[in-house]
Amino acid sequence: MSRPLDEKQTAERLTRAGRILILPHAAPDGDTVGSAFALCAALQRLGKQARILCSDSIPPKYEYLKGMIAPQQFEPDLIVAVDVADRKLLGKKVAPYSERVELCIDHHMSNTGYADELLLGREAAATCEVMVPLLDALGAAIDESIADALYTGIASDTGCFRYANTTPATLRRAARLAASGAHTAAINKRLFETVSLARMKVEAAALQTLQFFHEGRTAVMVVPYDAIQRAGAQDWELEGIASLPSRVEGVLAGVTLKEKRPGVFKISMRTSDPVDAAAVCANLGGGGHKNAAGCEYAGTADEARDRMVALIGGVYGK
Amino acid sequence: MSRPLDEKQTAERLTRAGRILILPHAAPDGDTVGSAFALCAALQRLGKQARILCSDSIPPKYEYLKGMIAPQQFEPDLIVAVDVADRKLLGKKVAPYSERVELCIDHHMSNTGYADELLLGREAAATCEVMVPLLDALGAAIDESIADALYTGIASDTGCFRYANTTPATLRRAARLAASGAHTAAINKRLFETVSLARMKVEAAALQTLQFFHEGRTAVMVVPYDAIQRAGAQDWELEGIASLPSRVEGVLAGVTLKEKRPGVFKISMRTSDPVDAAAVCANLGGGGHKNAAGCEYAGTADEARDRMVALIGGVYGK
Repeated sequence: MSRPLDEKQTAERLTRAGRILILPHAAPDGDTVGSAFALCAALQRLGKQARILCSDSIPPKYEYLKGMIAPQQFEPDLIVAVDVADRKLLGKKVAPYSERVELCIDHHMSNTGYADELLLGREAAATCEVMVPLLDALGAAIDESIADALYTGIASDTGCFRYANTTPATLRRAARLAASGAHTAAINKRLFETVSLARMKVEAAALQTLQFFHEGRTAVMVVPYDAIQRAGAQDWELEGIASLPSRVEGVLAGVTLKEKRPGVFKISMRTSDPVDAAAVCANLGGGGHKNAAGCEYAGTADEARDRMVALIGGVYGK
Repeated sequence: MSRPLDEKQTAERLTRAGRILILPHAAPDGDTVGSAFALCAALQRLGKQARILCSDSIPPKYEYLKGMIAPQQFEPDLIVAVDVADRKLLGKKVAPYSERVELCIDHHMSNTGYADELLLGREAAATCEVMVPLLDALGAAIDESIADALYTGIASDTGCFRYANTTPATLRRAARLAASGAHTAAINKRLFETVSLARMKVEAAALQTLQFFHEGRTAVMVVPYDAIQRAGAQDWELEGIASLPSRVEGVLAGVTLKEKRPGVFKISMRTSDPVDAAAVCANLGGGGHKNAAGCEYAGTADEARDRMVALIGGVYGK
């Protein structure tokens, strides 16, 4: 297990280092990107060498952050993972460093303790939220671009303050970042209001398939392979599409059947009490959380739908 | 013009009254409902008589607020309008009182000054944001239910903190309401994540009609009359649907043609710079703001679309 650090001790550890390599997780999201860029910029401005290494490329929607750090090349004397709950999530390309992570800054309660030392924000909605008091402890100023990066992570992980993980402290820290010059409205538009044409096309096709069962308590949507191909949609463009069926009023179990390749479905379930998504998905060898879980199914969309509807019907029947 | 008051003066005015009638605007939204309920509950708890009178019924999505006030009947000694920029917005049913509004609490810069006295939050994103320091000045405690009401208004008017009207103060006040026990996650789910089945059906049909022009800079969507009828969608259920075309990446002009009755279209335009929505809509006798405007068209959907596309093409051609 990692030795637990507080913000002050983490700041001291960073201060002792001179060349810091920062590792976000693979398939990077707003929080890992935002915390990596904010930390890297802060360390560079404190006169240190710092760079970011990610197994996957940074998605274009975060490109407004790219100009805030100077490119630097060096062999590190400290390796820091940000927003990475498990060593495996670092991805293949950072393998040379993944066994040597000395410090981890995170907010996932599921953190496996793979790093020597760990700053874990147990109540924090995002790793970027943990970064606010950490940068204070480091004596790093939160300028406009750092505020943009940290706001990006907090907004991403809270769905723009919609999710239950948003605490009063989350909102207070967001207020501080806004006051520090974060371009909140532009970032929100970019992250939450803008969808790609491909996504819009797939969504239009998927909504056509929406069907309801169990007096409207179950909704099933198919995302057909040919619709994804026709639209040319990438995986990251379909992020969050699985929440659509569960948004319909009265639906307790929303099921999305995404056809990964012809005849193979990635099934995502989003539920409200009393439907336990993990328990239903376990019947098909999947798993997850009570309100969000997944599994796979090989067959036709009709078969996958019928199977899921039957399993969910068993829950209501109890 | 109204005499401008600050929070302290407004609190004094309310304190002098004994029987307060609170008027939200007609077609009530979250902000007018939230400020009316919060003020009414606060005044009742301070031992005063207070009631709310609205020209239209409170939409079911705000019903979680209804239990917080006691029903009271009385002839008022003070009439207060909340979130009402213009006397006309009070609606017909409150006509007996609309000429006698003594105090208005608002955040619209366009407030016409129809009330004798006015507390105007010039920087406030919502009237509910103005209510926070006002209730403090009144000496009213912000309990859970008042926090729910005020949070409802702030979240509604900022699109859950997405819009450009969200300031650091907005976020700080939201933080305080969350700390006071507002059920933020449940309210967000209710206001932003839940859509009616009818809405989802209309959206699915409308997305099928999405067409692009001018190298993807213009998007046009039709909301067909028969789709609305088939789904049984009410007007309030279609709120915000006009923002869909403009959400597609690269679109500068998003046009929604909502068929109000067969052959008559309510046209809504949502634009980014340099497309001036109000200027385009003026060609068809409509108007609005630079980035959001509307007009009407009688004819077929194809004719309406062609006309709008031609007008917008003229803007790009300049």
